[in-house]
Amino acid sequence: MGRIFRTLCVSALLSVPLLAVASDQDTIRYREDVMKTLNEQAGVLGEMLSGAVPNDNYGAQLQAFALTASTALKAFESKVPGGKAKPAVWASWTDFSKRMTEFAQQAAAAAKTAKEQGNDAAAEDLIDATESCKSCHKQYRQEMKGDRDDQ
Amino acid sequence: MGRIFRTLCVSALLSVPLLAVASDQDTIRYREDVMKTLNEQAGVLGEMLSGAVPNDNYGAQLQAFALTASTALKAFESKVPGGKAKPAVWASWTDFSKRMTEFAQQAAAAAKTAKEQGNDAAAEDLIDATESCKSCHKQYRQEMKGDRDDQ
Repeated sequence: MGRIFRTLCVSALLSVPLLAVASDQDTIRYREDVMKTLNEQAGVLGEMLSGAVPNDNYGAQLQAFALTASTALKAFESKVPGGKAKPAVWASWTDFSKRMTEFAQQAAAAAKTAKEQGNDAAAEDLIDATESCKSCHKQYRQEMKGDRDDQ
Repeated sequence: MGRIFRTLCVSALLSVPLLAVASDQDTIRYREDVMKTLNEQAGVLGEMLSGAVPNDNYGAQLQAFALTASTALKAFESKVPGGKAKPAVWASWTDFSKRMTEFAQQAAAAAKTAKEQGNDAAAEDLIDATESCKSCHKQYRQEMKGDRDDQ
């Protein structure tokens, strides 16, 4: 099956516009999808850690969170303001990228610790990662009323 | 740092209610967060496959998708109707769990193929996984007007 046909099928199935050019809208949508993924994953981890639901899959969820975190900075590399991202992201790129890199490292450390030493041992690394979320959002994210993800 | 204090910190940071009991609401919220994660991840993969955004992190995103997929069935094990899940999920549990297991296997196969043979080679496995999403949603998910995720 040729590459174009495969892309066609996947795009159709995922309801993604085909033959899209890398427009500003695409860039913003992609960035938002990555950040929404992280937000949902943080919700899942929090629900497990609080004891609200069984934590059977905690390790896999944490690993998925760390993988997504490792991709997040890249989603901001194109200088396209919009969505919830404040223009400060690009005006203070050195600081922003340092924070995002640290966040990814903390998430990776949490996943590694959970794998090697168990879930409990990973909690401090995860606290570091969620503190990074919070302080970075305060600086670089527009707050919109009614957001669930207001950490 | 004690376990309770750690849990307290993480819960506070993630804005998750502390000392929550495993209520029906918790179960539904967790299930929805897992499915929303998959939806955002599918969006991310589709945006990359359609060429709308660069696919630098395609492998990591696909791996995160497969990890989340591996946890999805578990989120439905408690028989708690609500949210978008139709009661048919539990009335036809054998069929539903078979479909979810196949979906997780297809996502895992796509991630493995991408790692071993490159992104292009993984497209057919990913098509299988997204076809599974589509047919399972048709059978077991309430459709709500205005949903973006109507694949």
